[in-house]
Amino acid sequence: MSWESNVRKVIPYTPGEQPKSEDVIKLNTNECPYPPAPGVEKAILEFKSDSLRLYPDPNISSLVHCLADYYKVNQDQVFVGVGSDDVLAMAFLTYFNSDKPILFPDITYSFYDVWTELFKIPYKQQPLDENFRINKEDYLIENGGIVIANPNAPTGQSESVEMLEEIIKANPEVVVIVDEAYVDFGGVSCLSLIDKYENLLIVQTFSKSRSMAGMRIGFAMGSKKLIQYLQDAKYSFNSYTMNRPSIEFGVEAVTDDKYFKATIQKVVNTRERVKKELKELGFSFPDSKTNFIFATHNKYSAKDIFDALREKNIFVRYFNKPRINNYLRISIGTDKEMDTLLAFLREFLR
Amino acid sequence: MSWESNVRKVIPYTPGEQPKSEDVIKLNTNECPYPPAPGVEKAILEFKSDSLRLYPDPNISSLVHCLADYYKVNQDQVFVGVGSDDVLAMAFLTYFNSDKPILFPDITYSFYDVWTELFKIPYKQQPLDENFRINKEDYLIENGGIVIANPNAPTGQSESVEMLEEIIKANPEVVVIVDEAYVDFGGVSCLSLIDKYENLLIVQTFSKSRSMAGMRIGFAMGSKKLIQYLQDAKYSFNSYTMNRPSIEFGVEAVTDDKYFKATIQKVVNTRERVKKELKELGFSFPDSKTNFIFATHNKYSAKDIFDALREKNIFVRYFNKPRINNYLRISIGTDKEMDTLLAFLREFLR
Repeated sequence: MSWESNVRKVIPYTPGEQPKSEDVIKLNTNECPYPPAPGVEKAILEFKSDSLRLYPDPNISSLVHCLADYYKVNQDQVFVGVGSDDVLAMAFLTYFNSDKPILFPDITYSFYDVWTELFKIPYKQQPLDENFRINKEDYLIENGGIVIANPNAPTGQSESVEMLEEIIKANPEVVVIVDEAYVDFGGVSCLSLIDKYENLLIVQTFSKSRSMAGMRIGFAMGSKKLIQYLQDAKYSFNSYTMNRPSIEFGVEAVTDDKYFKATIQKVVNTRERVKKELKELGFSFPDSKTNFIFATHNKYSAKDIFDALREKNIFVRYFNKPRINNYLRISIGTDKEMDTLLAFLREFLR
Repeated sequence: MSWESNVRKVIPYTPGEQPKSEDVIKLNTNECPYPPAPGVEKAILEFKSDSLRLYPDPNISSLVHCLADYYKVNQDQVFVGVGSDDVLAMAFLTYFNSDKPILFPDITYSFYDVWTELFKIPYKQQPLDENFRINKEDYLIENGGIVIANPNAPTGQSESVEMLEEIIKANPEVVVIVDEAYVDFGGVSCLSLIDKYENLLIVQTFSKSRSMAGMRIGFAMGSKKLIQYLQDAKYSFNSYTMNRPSIEFGVEAVTDDKYFKATIQKVVNTRERVKKELKELGFSFPDSKTNFIFATHNKYSAKDIFDALREKNIFVRYFNKPRINNYLRISIGTDKEMDTLLAFLREFLR
């Protein structure tokens, strides 16, 4: 027997490419095209190198405090992690320990099935309908937990809070996670339901609407009891997940609400304009409430368009997977970036 | 049935207290009393806030490259994580999937049994002898993996590379982890063995000798195959664990070797002086090769000394655990801090 026989073997998640060249128009990982709040720059300049010799606050109090204030919840209802991936990974590990399968859509964030494989969680993928909508009934069966991205990725499709509440209400025996990574761009949050349903976890991130993908900050909100279990697991994995810069810079990103809202508005304006132009070019797509558009063309194959864009150093995301292999996920960049994209498409699709 | 029945319930690790007051002499979490390399300060000033909008490099290439250079290993032999706790947690999850118990000493880093509980890994704690030394034979039995901290914490005791090699050699069927968090202060690393034993993982950290506990950087070195499994698990958990500041500031901490060595020398000099003075005061301790001393007094109880120090705002670490509940773990601070500690002890123990 070799040491390899007891090793956990997994097929990891493949993140979108992170090109090192500056010449790229990067519309492939749903980053925000605008910088973080100006306070972040100030916090960097004021950051004391000497402070790094000391461990950070394991309770991440200042950031938790400021998120609790912003979202009008109690501090013991907030959990912070190294991006929403870290929060979700920890949530899967903590909450999904049933022999029954957890449920999530067949087309959704492609990390969900990776976590289930890593933690050996049984799961069942429920097919979205032909418009990429959820069939509510699919989530009213026996299960070990539920995770729904709303708005969904990569489709951009939003479901109503009412429908999600019906699902949550029907599943008091399991934890229901609503992954709201993209909610700030026009979706409706289920946050208002956390005081009503003890088993509901809302997960959000600083990576998109708060322009801090490079800082790795995600957070969850839920009942005190639900959050306590998550904290216990986190403290059993790594007591100090958030480094000092994350905590200090993160606070600045939350406190400047005016900048936050203005940034979102800019992205939304660009998105709505691009929707019109893409339609005129023969694309169709679910009505995105996110910072990306998931589009298919009535004549050209997504793969061909993807390859052609790629040659022009315009990166978008293509998933070679059943049902969505004729779609492109196009992040919303600056107006200028989108104009370059549209100009190329006009040329290419003519 | 309630949603709570399928929740993973754990008793988390308790980190040393992180007091917020500035008046404290903090000798309780083995931080370095000196600031990080001057290059880190420069990197902070040069850090571009705008870069935070983009995801970091998931491969952490620049930091991996610079660690590989420094330790004269290949880049595919290096793994980087959010502190050595993150690296160790991921290693436990990846490598320890046997039905047989993993082995580690009864007195050692108290996170080991927390990870085994979290991941439901069977384990057996092998008692150290009365001098806190390892009995080699304890690790020559059937097992599912081995983890040994060398130098050990909280004892400060070092074992020889020769003895560890005998253990590694006798265990080709499992992964052996040598946790070298404190090795830079005078221990001898097993790093030279990684090309000889494919199943040996060396774990180190930036938190102690590199003065960056607040930055959360740890790393592992091992065979290409061993590291690949760890990478796969990491990419299945969180693709982007290291944020942009970690990567950029971390590189600076590695490249300034002169500063690194000078800092270690200062800590070692202070430690050796404090050893003499503690002996004169009636303390005894294993001959520490770390940045802390694990001391017991011939008359006064450790708990009483701990409480008295605490009242004077001098924080050291006390573990209320069998066999070590009459010991204090005292981190090596600046000479001035140690003088304050010693002055108080002279008074208190008289």
